[in-house]
Formats: sequence, structure tokens, C-alpha cells
Amino acid sequence: MTKFGNYLDSGSDNQLAFEGIKVPDLAAQYGTPLFVLSENTIRQNFRRIHRAFADVYPAEVIVCAGMKGNWGLAARRVIVEEGGGGDAFGLGELTVAMMAGSDPRKIVMNGANKSRETIEAAIDMGVLNQVDNPDELRLVGEVATQMGKVARISLRIRLPLRSLAEVKYVDARYPEGISPSYWERTFKFGLAPDAYAEAVKIAQGMKNVSLEGCHYHGGIPRRAGFYREETEELVEILGDIKAQTGWAPAYLNIGGGFVSERYGADAPPSVEEYGRVISKAITETCAKHGMPVPVLMLEPGRYCWESAGLWVVQVNARKEDHTLANKTWVYVDGNSNEMRDPFDPRCSVHHIVVANDVERKGAEVVDVCGQTCNAGDILAKARELPPLKIGDTLAFLDMGAYNESFACQSNVIPRSATVMVSNGRSTVVRRRETVADVLSREVVPTWLMTREAAE
Amino acid sequence: MTKFGNYLDSGSDNQLAFEGIKVPDLAAQYGTPLFVLSENTIRQNFRRIHRAFADVYPAEVIVCAGMKGNWGLAARRVIVEEGGGGDAFGLGELTVAMMAGSDPRKIVMNGANKSRETIEAAIDMGVLNQVDNPDELRLVGEVATQMGKVARISLRIRLPLRSLAEVKYVDARYPEGISPSYWERTFKFGLAPDAYAEAVKIAQGMKNVSLEGCHYHGGIPRRAGFYREETEELVEILGDIKAQTGWAPAYLNIGGGFVSERYGADAPPSVEEYGRVISKAITETCAKHGMPVPVLMLEPGRYCWESAGLWVVQVNARKEDHTLANKTWVYVDGNSNEMRDPFDPRCSVHHIVVANDVERKGAEVVDVCGQTCNAGDILAKARELPPLKIGDTLAFLDMGAYNESFACQSNVIPRSATVMVSNGRSTVVRRRETVADVLSREVVPTWLMTREAAE
Repeated sequence: MTKFGNYLDSGSDNQLAFEGIKVPDLAAQYGTPLFVLSENTIRQNFRRIHRAFADVYPAEVIVCAGMKGNWGLAARRVIVEEGGGGDAFGLGELTVAMMAGSDPRKIVMNGANKSRETIEAAIDMGVLNQVDNPDELRLVGEVATQMGKVARISLRIRLPLRSLAEVKYVDARYPEGISPSYWERTFKFGLAPDAYAEAVKIAQGMKNVSLEGCHYHGGIPRRAGFYREETEELVEILGDIKAQTGWAPAYLNIGGGFVSERYGADAPPSVEEYGRVISKAITETCAKHGMPVPVLMLEPGRYCWESAGLWVVQVNARKEDHTLANKTWVYVDGNSNEMRDPFDPRCSVHHIVVANDVERKGAEVVDVCGQTCNAGDILAKARELPPLKIGDTLAFLDMGAYNESFACQSNVIPRSATVMVSNGRSTVVRRRETVADVLSREVVPTWLMTREAAE
Repeated sequence: MTKFGNYLDSGSDNQLAFEGIKVPDLAAQYGTPLFVLSENTIRQNFRRIHRAFADVYPAEVIVCAGMKGNWGLAARRVIVEEGGGGDAFGLGELTVAMMAGSDPRKIVMNGANKSRETIEAAIDMGVLNQVDNPDELRLVGEVATQMGKVARISLRIRLPLRSLAEVKYVDARYPEGISPSYWERTFKFGLAPDAYAEAVKIAQGMKNVSLEGCHYHGGIPRRAGFYREETEELVEILGDIKAQTGWAPAYLNIGGGFVSERYGADAPPSVEEYGRVISKAITETCAKHGMPVPVLMLEPGRYCWESAGLWVVQVNARKEDHTLANKTWVYVDGNSNEMRDPFDPRCSVHHIVVANDVERKGAEVVDVCGQTCNAGDILAKARELPPLKIGDTLAFLDMGAYNESFACQSNVIPRSATVMVSNGRSTVVRRRETVADVLSREVVPTWLMTREAAE
């Protein structure tokens, strides 16, 4: 038996099984391509990252499982049952969060550029509106006043991180490296510290606004390993702002960007390590500045979802070329429309398992290709795999984050169905798309309907 | 008056107008973000590239306007009225082509990896099935035999292009350069010449298959400027194959990849230049090998659609930072979910016009940002533009190709509506998406509906 995860293994009969259900059986029952989401893997991931912080942090910890990584309603319902929150963006994600029964106190509303309608919804629901800039702060105050309600807000900050200016971060997306400090200083979100202090003063003077939190999410600095440095600098700056304004946040949201483990790839820092280091940095720096330890919010997306999702495809054809390219292509019935994770530090390199014959011997180097018209539609490039045959069922591991949420319909190709598996049961949680779905918004102008075609 | 195209100018009142309709009026009537497609620009582009080849080529020319660049039903209807064809991929694009009333003789069915259902549909419709590999050829024969019909096919070829092995092609997508020859030899489509000759012999022996055409599309070699070299090599190899098999194609499909003009960018070769050079290369090389000049098919996508489409957004907010980033961000109500053209040699750098004040004076350098949660959601980076104000209507030019067809729904953000404009009239041809549309495939397992949320 090969074990790929706590709920994913090859069983006794050499067939890949997720929560005890054979993946080839899922392929036969629901068709391919197919996403498979494991309820208990989501629970396990959520619980582990929650405990990694809650066990060491001296105040409440709210894990807002990142919605942009997986906005499925069923996946969200699992998080709600676990007592988790979410970082909604805009009306669509807020709708999913509330339809799933989320506690509004655990939901934050993100975005640098919210519409009036979105701000109204956040006020309606009583969720924490993470305000990006002075224009938005003004708009939130205006909308709240018109509604006769109080808007709960936090303000988003950008850090200088000048001590990291000379550092280069390199991954598959940034082969030439980028500076975490430059990234953080110049990206589109949040306010520089001086503008932040100004915004706090403005918010303090606004009657219909309750300033409750600070939001920080760097992304690259954390991924580059500087989570202690960024956290200390963040809380130091909040100490300065408290000295200037008297205000300290009741909620501190440190965002996401925690690298998750992936089968067959190098292990990142453990979440327990993130929890210990970040918790200590906040607690000690708050103490130094005489600030109460705030409620901690975090927004892990990839960590919650990635290992909970498989993508299952079937081999349709092979092509070998021994004279010109000297390579072999294997064609499957999925395609890169559904492998579009834009934040993946490994650039979508996912471990592939022959689900119907996990321990198959032998090896050949192939390109695994999708069925679209694009030369770039390669799902695995020059990958060493066991010899593949027409009819084989392949499972791409660790596909639960960002792939479905960024999927497109190029070539008018309908998207996969998604099933959830749980303790030996399975059910569709996202029905398979049809051509009629993809074309459902099309209409021809009347003036083009009546003329004849040219010869 | 500033003229951006034959149908696109600033009119007399400093407002951008497309086919005589003011773009700010379209924004007010239909809302933003909004795609605007000009019927007569599509006609003009189609006619020009058709004539560029038909005026110089000694046999019939069929322009198969690339479906993957724009699979809109209304856009397709315009091509049908012009007498054009299309390169359908799979059932979805074939459905669009046939719903729009295409002549099946002008439709080709592409793809390296077609399902049985797709092959059946191609046989039903009598369209030319462009077969990629021996497995597919076998499947086509099997399906045609079962259906008791004859499958019209062409075979796709890959070329050695060894004379270009040392050449480097460089563009914004390939800053370090790639070899057009290596690209062409090793990509996933088609057969090497020796395998091609074998496949011709197999097809000649198949009762239910009518081998009518040859399909070639290199992409990078053409874009790199080697359209004469690749065409000569292509027809030379077909001459060799004729010598071996006695077969010559009745249809020669040379694919797409013709670089189109874009406002404000360097001018590529004219389509008349492509037409002259390619026509001469085919005619002379056919004569050399004693082959009849085949019907010429081409598959220009970008050329037909790109300049026919605007994308219109509204400015929501500004943010200036004079202490940390020293830059200015302008936030609009569109986002990069709808700017995802993966084949763009200029990496989505589109000219931006202030539609409500085209001649506005002054300049500032800004990042134009979308409203999603992603730091990379930048629609124009460090771009010099006139000073922008909240409420301004911006038009991104040359957005008609690949942006809508690759659009996604990340952050559960509904996609734009599309209107077609024509001689002073306008109408919706793709209705605006709603959150309900985006969530229409979601369902929660019954076992998750009944439990209480944790605290």
C-alpha cells in the first residue's frame, strides 16, 4: 500500500482510494474529468492550522479559510461546521459564506476596490470591512451614514520591510528572483504607515464607523521565510501608531500565504513553526508597546484546500515520435482550462498517480497533454511516469486550491464536475458543466438573423 | 478628432465613439465593465485578410476565422454572412459554428485529442476532421464504419525547420528567446514527415475515410517572420509524400498566427505581404513537384477579432503614496479575470483611452488595478496616462481576441456583458453574468445540511 495522505492511499488492491472510495469507481460513476474533494482532509487541514496557532496564542484565533482558493459551497459548509471563518471578497464570495451559515463575526470583507453595493452588503451582515484606502474609507462612512448603521472596519497596512531590501526570493514563478521588501512596499493593497496613522485619525472622527482591526498580508515576504521579521515590524509600527493616535486593534489579521505540504515536493516550514514564531512575535512586541494582545485572524487558503482535492482524468490517446521530436505524448480528457492556479510557487507541478494501477512498474518520460487547441496545454511536461495505456485513470494530487476557482471555458469546453467524498460516501457538489451552460449568455442581434450568408 | 481605427474615433465632442455610438453612453446604458464589439470592424478585418490571399492565390481561399479567439455567436454570424468558415474545436465550438449557419465545407474540426462524441459530430456535419495521430485516425475509421458514413479528414503535420535551428525568437512572453524550429519540432500537435507518410498510406487503405487535406500550423515560426521558409518546406515535404504515396491534398490549411496591428504598437508585416509571399511559395513549390494547387484554408483569429473589441471600465478610486512606494494606483471596476489572453506577444499591453475626455491634457504614471484579491491584478503597469478621476470611463483598445474566450470567475466575480455596435445601433450579444450564474452548479451534501456549526 502506498500512502499519499491520511485519507488517500492505494488500498489493498492497487487502486487509489480517497476516504475509502476507489477513484476508478468515482470516474466510472461520475465521468471524467472530475474533481474529488475529501471532506475529512479539509477538516484535518483546518484543525491543524487552527491548533498550530490557538495552542500557543494567548487570545482568540479565528481561521478565515481563504475563499479565493476554493469558493465551493460544500467546502465552505465544512469550514463552518469546524467553527471557521472566511475572507470574502465582493458580493459573490460573501453570498457563498452566508449561504453556508458562517458566523458574521468570523467573516472579513477584502478588496482594494469595493463597490457601493458590496459595502452595503458588508454593513448589512455586520462583517468586518477591510478598508484599503482613504477614498474607500470615505465611501464606507457615507454609505453607513445613509443606512443609519455602524460599519465595522479594519484598515489594511503595507510595510517598509527595508531590512529585506537586499534579499532575493526565487521560486518557479520568479526564476530571476524578486525582493520581498520591494514587492511589499509597492503592491496595490493597503496604506503606508504614515498614511495609515492619518486614516486611523480620520476613522476615529467618523460617527458611523467602528475601527476594530488591522489587516496585513504580504504574500512574498512570508513565503520567502521572513514571517518573524514581518510580524515584528508590523506590531512595532502598530505600537508607533498607538503612540500617535491612542488606537490599537482589537483584531489583527495577518492574512495567508502559508506554504502547504505537497506530495513529492520539498517540505515547507510546519504550520506549528509558523504558529510558534508568529505568536511569540506578536505577544512580545505587543507587551513592549503596552498593547493588549488582539484577536488573531489568519487567512490560509492553499493550506486548507490543496491536499483535499484530486483531479481525475482518463487517457485517450498516445503518440510517439522517434524521428523528429524524440518524445512521447499522452493525451487525456482534461485540459489546462482547469489547471490555472496563478499563485503556485511550483508552477502547477502536481504528482500524478495511475489510479487504476498505483504500483505499476516501469518508467517513460512523457508530456501529458490536454485536449484544447493550445500548444501550451501541457498538464505535465517531460514527466517520468509508468507506461500509460489508453483507458488508464490518472489522478493529479493536491489540486484542491485555486484550480477550480480560476478555471475558464476556452474552446467552449465545459468544466469538470466535483464530487465530495466522506467516510465511504460520495455525492456531486458541483454539477458537470454543459455546452448549453457555456453558451447560456449568447444572443444574436435581430438584424443579423434575417440575412443570407454569402457564397 | 483622434482616429484610432476606421470605426473608432473621438468624434467632434471629445468622446470616444465606436460605429458612431458614444462609448460613455454605452457605459451608462449597459453598465460597466462592458465589452463592445464592432460588427463592421469584424467585416473589414475579415475582408482584408481574405482579399490579401484571394487576390493573389490561383485557387479558392477559405478563411476559417479562429473560433478560440472569439467564440461569440453574434461574432460568428457576422463571419457567416461574409462567407467565412471556422476552425471549430470540440462539440462546443462546432455547436456555435453550426448555430450561426456556417457552411460545413468551410468548417474544420481541430484538436489533438478528440472524444468519440466529437468525431461522431464531425462526421454528422460533414466537416473536415483534422486528424492528429494514428490512434485518432484509427478511431475516426472505427466511428465512421459504425455510423455507415464516410469521414472527411485532413492530417496534421509537424515540420523539421532545421534551417531555423539557430534562430532565436524573442517577445514579451519569451524574453530569453526560443527557437522556432525547436518549438515546431517538439510541440504536441501533428505528425513528423515520416509518420505522416505512414498515416497517408493507412488512410488510403481505409474504406470509410476520405483523405482530403493537410493541416499545418506552426505559430512561433510564422510569428518570428519565417512564413516563406516554413511554407516552402511544408510544400516540399508534401511533394516527397506525393512521390511516396501518390497522394496530394485537395485542401491545404496553413493555420493562423498572423500578427495583427495594434493601436500604438509596432506594425507587423501587412496581411497583403503574408498573402503574396505564402501564395507564391505554395504555387511555385507545387509546380516544382507537379502537384495541383490546393484550396487554401487559413485560420486567422487575432487578426479578425482583436481590433473589433473594446473593453470599457469605470474609475472607482485613486490611491497615492508619496512616502513608501512613491506611486499612484487607479482602481477600476473591471479586473484581470477578463484580461487573460495567453498568446499575446505584447503580454496584454493595451492602449487606454479616457472615453469621456479623449484629448485630456497632462500626464501621470499610474498602475491601473482591478478589483480582485490578487496582487497581480494590474490592468496596466506604470503606464503614463492623463490624470484620471473617479467616474472616468476608460476604454482598453484591441481587446476583441482571447480575452473573453479565456475569462474566468475568480473571487466569484460575474463577467462583463458584451454589446455589438453596428452603424449607430447597439444591442447585447452576451448578457451580463450574475452571482447566481456563477454559483448555479453548487450543491451541499445532505449530510452537511443538518449539523450545527461549531462555536
